[in-house]
Amino acid sequence: MIDLRSDTVTKPTLKMRQAAFEAEVGDDVFEEDPTVQRLELKAAEMLGKESALFVTSGTQGNQIAALTHCQPGDEVLMEEEAHIFLYEGASMSALAGVQPRTIKGTNGAMDPEEVRSKIRPENVHFPDTSLICIENTHNKAGGAVVPLENMQAIYEIAREHGIPVHLDGARLFNASIASGISVRRFADQTDSVQFCLSKGLGAPAGSIIAGSTEFIRKARKWRKRLGGGLRQVGMIAAPGLIALEEMVERLEEDHSNARLLAEGIGNIPGLKVEKAVETNIVLVNVEECQRTAEQFLDQLRENGILAVPFGPYTIRFVTHFDVSEEEIQITVRRMAEMVNQFKKL
Amino acid sequence: MIDLRSDTVTKPTLKMRQAAFEAEVGDDVFEEDPTVQRLELKAAEMLGKESALFVTSGTQGNQIAALTHCQPGDEVLMEEEAHIFLYEGASMSALAGVQPRTIKGTNGAMDPEEVRSKIRPENVHFPDTSLICIENTHNKAGGAVVPLENMQAIYEIAREHGIPVHLDGARLFNASIASGISVRRFADQTDSVQFCLSKGLGAPAGSIIAGSTEFIRKARKWRKRLGGGLRQVGMIAAPGLIALEEMVERLEEDHSNARLLAEGIGNIPGLKVEKAVETNIVLVNVEECQRTAEQFLDQLRENGILAVPFGPYTIRFVTHFDVSEEEIQITVRRMAEMVNQFKKL
Amino acid sequence: MIDLRSDTVTKPTLKMRQAAFEAEVGDDVFEEDPTVQRLELKAAEMLGKESALFVTSGTQGNQIAALTHCQPGDEVLMEEEAHIFLYEGASMSALAGVQPRTIKGTNGAMDPEEVRSKIRPENVHFPDTSLICIENTHNKAGGAVVPLENMQAIYEIAREHGIPVHLDGARLFNASIASGISVRRFADQTDSVQFCLSKGLGAPAGSIIAGSTEFIRKARKWRKRLGGGLRQVGMIAAPGLIALEEMVERLEEDHSNARLLAEGIGNIPGLKVEKAVETNIVLVNVEECQRTAEQFLDQLRENGILAVPFGPYTIRFVTHFDVSEEEIQITVRRMAEMVNQFKKL
Amino acid sequence: MIDLRSDTVTKPTLKMRQAAFEAEVGDDVFEEDPTVQRLELKAAEMLGKESALFVTSGTQGNQIAALTHCQPGDEVLMEEEAHIFLYEGASMSALAGVQPRTIKGTNGAMDPEEVRSKIRPENVHFPDTSLICIENTHNKAGGAVVPLENMQAIYEIAREHGIPVHLDGARLFNASIASGISVRRFADQTDSVQFCLSKGLGAPAGSIIAGSTEFIRKARKWRKRLGGGLRQVGMIAAPGLIALEEMVERLEEDHSNARLLAEGIGNIPGLKVEKAVETNIVLVNVEECQRTAEQFLDQLRENGILAVPFGPYTIRFVTHFDVSEEEIQITVRRMAEMVNQFKKL
Repeated sequence: MIDLRSDTVTKPTLKMRQAAFEAEVGDDVFEEDPTVQRLELKAAEMLGKESALFVTSGTQGNQIAALTHCQPGDEVLMEEEAHIFLYEGASMSALAGVQPRTIKGTNGAMDPEEVRSKIRPENVHFPDTSLICIENTHNKAGGAVVPLENMQAIYEIAREHGIPVHLDGARLFNASIASGISVRRFADQTDSVQFCLSKGLGAPAGSIIAGSTEFIRKARKWRKRLGGGLRQVGMIAAPGLIALEEMVERLEEDHSNARLLAEGIGNIPGLKVEKAVETNIVLVNVEECQRTAEQFLDQLRENGILAVPFGPYTIRFVTHFDVSEEEIQITVRRMAEMVNQFKKL
Repeated sequence: MIDLRSDTVTKPTLKMRQAAFEAEVGDDVFEEDPTVQRLELKAAEMLGKESALFVTSGTQGNQIAALTHCQPGDEVLMEEEAHIFLYEGASMSALAGVQPRTIKGTNGAMDPEEVRSKIRPENVHFPDTSLICIENTHNKAGGAVVPLENMQAIYEIAREHGIPVHLDGARLFNASIASGISVRRFADQTDSVQFCLSKGLGAPAGSIIAGSTEFIRKARKWRKRLGGGLRQVGMIAAPGLIALEEMVERLEEDHSNARLLAEGIGNIPGLKVEKAVETNIVLVNVEECQRTAEQFLDQLRENGILAVPFGPYTIRFVTHFDVSEEEIQITVRRMAEMVNQFKKL
Repeated sequence: MIDLRSDTVTKPTLKMRQAAFEAEVGDDVFEEDPTVQRLELKAAEMLGKESALFVTSGTQGNQIAALTHCQPGDEVLMEEEAHIFLYEGASMSALAGVQPRTIKGTNGAMDPEEVRSKIRPENVHFPDTSLICIENTHNKAGGAVVPLENMQAIYEIAREHGIPVHLDGARLFNASIASGISVRRFADQTDSVQFCLSKGLGAPAGSIIAGSTEFIRKARKWRKRLGGGLRQVGMIAAPGLIALEEMVERLEEDHSNARLLAEGIGNIPGLKVEKAVETNIVLVNVEECQRTAEQFLDQLRENGILAVPFGPYTIRFVTHFDVSEEEIQITVRRMAEMVNQFKKL
Repeated sequence: MIDLRSDTVTKPTLKMRQAAFEAEVGDDVFEEDPTVQRLELKAAEMLGKESALFVTSGTQGNQIAALTHCQPGDEVLMEEEAHIFLYEGASMSALAGVQPRTIKGTNGAMDPEEVRSKIRPENVHFPDTSLICIENTHNKAGGAVVPLENMQAIYEIAREHGIPVHLDGARLFNASIASGISVRRFADQTDSVQFCLSKGLGAPAGSIIAGSTEFIRKARKWRKRLGGGLRQVGMIAAPGLIALEEMVERLEEDHSNARLLAEGIGNIPGLKVEKAVETNIVLVNVEECQRTAEQFLDQLRENGILAVPFGPYTIRFVTHFDVSEEEIQITVRRMAEMVNQFKKL
């Protein structure tokens, strides 16, 4: 099976396993796990934030940000297809009691002026706008990089209104590698950042949230409430450190494989690549094959290839560490044959 | 002052005051207020629902519906400019813990197929879609009547998926009078309905929610939690009964006045009526006057006329019982002079 | 029927009805109802607070206080049998997301040192203690007056820790009349106060919350979210004004009637008055009659007397404006006969 | 340092580290991690439940149980010093919106008849009682085993009322080893169970919740919302499997060490063991030493021994895999010297 469903499926490398095996650990609820502390310190430095906290998933990081920045009855601005809105089980409303207000973006980027216009004035009928979320890279926009200038413009508006900005940077390192802009420069345009160790960076689990010391102090308490305070979690943090130290630069390979995949698919009549490929995600429209995404995926699976549905006729492929250039070529070949077969039916 | 800000500003009629004065009352928390019970019975009958409950406001009715139909972490579908989304302080998320998901409608009506496409399939990442809200008439769409056929189509889809439909009928009687369709037929396309006694119907306060006996049993408990369980509230229910008995038919006058106002304004160069007037709301665009809504309203106020902003360049006028045809004519005259004056500056 | 179930059952007086009839009203959501404003001003003055807000019930006032003072995940200290804990549908947890922590009191008064010991230190496992609630008079303690000195001692501890104190003063005027201490002096030992217009004071509905200007600004928004923002609510506020102006002093009659009732019942063999009667509540233990509270109440009802259960063998009687001294005497007589009858069986 | 603060401080064994190193893993959000699945299967079998779910901590397991069993505005019964009430950041109220109602127990066991008396009847003022929580062993009661008969009696009452029972079995295996009763027989008296892999069983992190298939289906969704859905989490589950397979029987050593510690401390004049030692927890009162718990602990730390405060004058010691019998003897010796020293001052 060539598994292109998500970069979350990567298996930990041998080095990561060794790091887990050897990890120096302690009870992290007592803040005594040296490996976790090294990871948090390194992450904070990379992002240029005062403090960082290891959390068990990107969803947990995003939700803790909402719980820490907001109060119930507040409103949060985000792009219409943000992960936090579509894929986190309405958690922001369930846990933090806040209302998401969505803005249709272009390639994942919200128009700063529309952001401004959606900030609520004081009125007894209105919630307070208390958070702006940006997702970079933007998953549903096909891994598009939200431009630094866009983030700068939004952050400026946010500061004018005293509203914090949270970055869902689950794939922030992909944005950095693709744009040549450091993660720190992106993070500078925010009050809090979440990024995942477990996607393209290949760690088995875990994410980081970072922000001011005060933000992290409160976040730590919310992490405990969500059950994210773990004990000898250095065993998971250790692979995360390897991920940060050794897996960042190689994201370029995933991007290159994604471009290769998109080019190959672009040459198959009946398939259309929906968005320009900027990072490690390829969205493909299969409607001309007269098959729904689900039907198309079933047949792909029979041909040894896995991907996920991303709309009625849209399929998402994600390249990652466990898929080689050769497997990308095999994927293209098999898809071409498969689609060709359709026409004969 | 000619107050066209909202139909909520109507003062109770003499007859309503007399009804309050004479009301037979009891402790409604013990379910012993005969006047409230008469009102609830009458409302349930008019709507064709098993049971009804007096609540202190439309917001309270809508929120109780969400609290009763949904569980935290659910998703609720509604039109993008629904009152429940824009004007209720993010209460649904704050109190019921649910996430609103909005659909851009046409004249307040959501495309049933888009509603269908937004119902979430089962997936560990997704909230359950547990409620569909319809607003009729639709305030932000300029008092547009959501067509019965549209409600029927949505209700059919909802039933297929086992999802309840709630009608925010704050101005349902306006929809009924304008369309010639009984409130009951609209209510038949729903599982629960809220309507206001205090808008066009002129009662000083209060709304009704109606639904199944089981729905109302749970709603009563949520009403208590919100602090909406009152004591000798027959004194407020009594004017509400007058409203239902005597004020429904006269809504046609408000509609006629709204048309008159729209025609008059339509003839003033520089002003544009944004939406066809179907009921008692007139939305006017003032952009050509090179004034923001707020600036325009300030000057209107100096001319003895009150309205509210409804967008950067949009103003809303609402006709109601306390504004006569003559006052509408005065309003048009003064606005024409005012706008004329602008050009000279 | 002699209805001693609660002082909430009082019917509005003729003067109250007249006040409602004549009330000058406006749209209170726009803060334009002059009668409501007069009531709020008068209440704030009486309590010595910067600002006051009309709410529809005591429960609503208490819940708004929690929503305004606290954040989700906080802990609130209160007496073990506080109304807010036992009789408000777990609303504090449902709406404000806070955890009640109860302290067993003596006659409704918590030991200040126990309050101090229950305030949480900083620890990642602990909620923040963010509110202390006091109930005065204390309903479950048989209408006991919580002594001013007790409130002073608790308030001092609260201020040391920067924790606000909320007073559930549903029957605060009873405490004042019974103790000869002004409501203002009690209110001085708090950050926010709620009192009911609809109990001993006889208004048909409504309560007041009072506190700082900033507290009331936030409270107003929470009131809207709960659906407690009403329109021409001067019609209900007007009787409330009468209640404040004319019904306070007469609470002494209710207290006198309660003492009369307690004395009478105390002389009936088989019945025991559980608590010294300080205000308008009499708790009676019926266990020696070998009947449960429910069984005893059924027979009382057959004898034309209504009360409520307050424990497996405890019954609560509340005296109020609609029960005369003569009716109290009748009540005692009938109970004596009834209990006497039991022995013959 | 001899660290007796908690059994959570145990470092993973070599075998656990090897298991992590070699673990066969997959993406557990897609339910494809074979190691997690083996662990969940084994746990469900041991407990005699249909299904089980790996969660990242005991707090997460308990909170998911509340979120799955309850609805906002419900009431949950638990012992007055339950972990879920004292040490989980008021999470049940913050996340699930439920009100805890506590019952003072004896050695951690609630009187079944008091449980029955606290179940709420139907009344518009009352929350619904929707969950009963039992903690076994009971941490604050000094690791006391809640007797099986007590759990049976409570479960019977619960079933009569249709209320589920949740067992916080963070140290359930200690209860089992101490009593000779299988975990399954305890679990039979419940609807859901949580136990920790990371305490006496020595795994680095993680807990299990178990219940019906339907319970676990909902729990999985709540786990995702809390951010507890991890990826290649087999690396953590693998040590958990070792914990279940090899570390259960050896809990007897911890219990034996605890008894040894208690006996030794019992012979030191000025120290009092507060509760009979049933498992691996020893509570010691230091009041006669005229030192607070915090002061006493500071000096213990200087003598190379760590424990935690458990009250103003109470200290908790917990024995575990990383403390040997010899270290217990050293602990006793040093404490004796230390206390002896106090008297000379």
